[in-house]
Amino acid sequence: MRELAFAKGHGAMNDFVILTDPEGELALSDDDVRFLCDRRAGIGADGTLRVVLAKHVPGWEGDPELWFMDYRNSDGSVAEMCGNGLRVFLRHLVAEGLADWPVSVGTRAGLRSGVPVADGLIEVTMGEAAFRGEAVQWVGDARLPGVLVDVGNLHLVSFLPPGVALDSLDLSSEPGWDSADSFPTGVNHEFVELLNPGRLRMRVYERGSAETMCCGTGVVASAAAAAEEYWPGVTEVLVETQGGCLRVRLGDQAFLTGPALIVAKGRVLLPDAGSRQLADSGRR
Amino acid sequence: MRELAFAKGHGAMNDFVILTDPEGELALSDDDVRFLCDRRAGIGADGTLRVVLAKHVPGWEGDPELWFMDYRNSDGSVAEMCGNGLRVFLRHLVAEGLADWPVSVGTRAGLRSGVPVADGLIEVTMGEAAFRGEAVQWVGDARLPGVLVDVGNLHLVSFLPPGVALDSLDLSSEPGWDSADSFPTGVNHEFVELLNPGRLRMRVYERGSAETMCCGTGVVASAAAAAEEYWPGVTEVLVETQGGCLRVRLGDQAFLTGPALIVAKGRVLLPDAGSRQLADSGRR
Repeated sequence: MRELAFAKGHGAMNDFVILTDPEGELALSDDDVRFLCDRRAGIGADGTLRVVLAKHVPGWEGDPELWFMDYRNSDGSVAEMCGNGLRVFLRHLVAEGLADWPVSVGTRAGLRSGVPVADGLIEVTMGEAAFRGEAVQWVGDARLPGVLVDVGNLHLVSFLPPGVALDSLDLSSEPGWDSADSFPTGVNHEFVELLNPGRLRMRVYERGSAETMCCGTGVVASAAAAAEEYWPGVTEVLVETQGGCLRVRLGDQAFLTGPALIVAKGRVLLPDAGSRQLADSGRR
Repeated sequence: MRELAFAKGHGAMNDFVILTDPEGELALSDDDVRFLCDRRAGIGADGTLRVVLAKHVPGWEGDPELWFMDYRNSDGSVAEMCGNGLRVFLRHLVAEGLADWPVSVGTRAGLRSGVPVADGLIEVTMGEAAFRGEAVQWVGDARLPGVLVDVGNLHLVSFLPPGVALDSLDLSSEPGWDSADSFPTGVNHEFVELLNPGRLRMRVYERGSAETMCCGTGVVASAAAAAEEYWPGVTEVLVETQGGCLRVRLGDQAFLTGPALIVAKGRVLLPDAGSRQLADSGRR
């Protein structure tokens, strides 16, 4: 049994267990992450954010004294980037006195930074949104052409044709797509309803996980794809998700603005691997 | 914004946010409970357990110096009893030095007590399981006769006929039943597969909530109904649920044995009512 300090927070309902581990002493197995993220047996979250000095991260070639965001999905797997997690990560750093605004941090997708803006929101840099061609994905009977967008991780964004309602899509299982052989690490699947120039609604199915209420990189990918395909000259897009409304600024690189809240802090008891029972994380 | 101390624990994956409030000073609105139980915006749980001295509970006529389990569902509504919550409540009292084993506490269903038994499990008294007649409930195309059992709250227990698999039942919405007019406060719906004398599997749909991984009073109701209908003379029943295996001893009153774990402790920030955003608690 180990006792760890933790914080819990969320950005647009994408929620995280945060572990502060400056010197990289915290060896977290996949099972440990699964336990922490288990919504019944553990604390519950979409993923964990470990706060570690970049010098302890193998392969990091930037400033060794930066804080590094070690993001892992709820199944324990490592992910490149998480836009909502990044805002929560920065909020935590400043709240704990570990950094002052503006904050730059290392991530597996490179250097990222953020500043507070109006209404308690945080704007973060999201790197370049790069187009990688086209593909087709399908949900139920609907076959939907889509655009591949790389925002540190890969997204397949489809715009819904007239007559297909966003709320009617069955995203209870992962949508199929026709280019899985070319991209073996998979994609996140976004489905977009255009509202008016500069405003859209979207739903997202996250690769290897489930439909989530919001995905920060997916928000940026959807905004970039909409501007590219439909809205030439538009550089600011409001994106409505089930978790809240976010703002994207487009340019050589993208910026994402949204909420980030720390809800609770405390200590968690991590049971030994042998005595651990998990709930089926697919259930409530 | 208020900051509250909390603990989080679970019994057979039925999970709770526990608030220690000896003098009854904590005014928790339904919205406060919903926030605490929200699995994304808050901490996340099936309900809250407030630890308060019984003398502060209107209507309590027993020992005023007992601890009282003020249980509320995740939607803020008050419930009479929760067998899994009771074990977690007792575990918390002893862990915090607020009581020593054996522990007796007040609940809305009356006096209850518990003792630790083998393997870290806790056995609690559950009162009498009283039969209240019969009714019919239906899930999809299956119409299933059932037995009404009162364990402080009311249960409708159906035994599955050959050819109806427990895992195949669609409990994504509340089952219908034919006696709702006579019992306006509703029932919890249990579906039971008999394995062999003294052993059964069950699933439960909790009144006004959803299918849950385990329901302590439902476990007792199912065991009592199975012994009454099929197993004369059997006084000990093992009940397999999705959240784990529990043991029921039957007699003038019922006893329930199962796990109870405290997972985390800390402080939570309760936002002001006006600035609060909740996730749809029906989603992951």
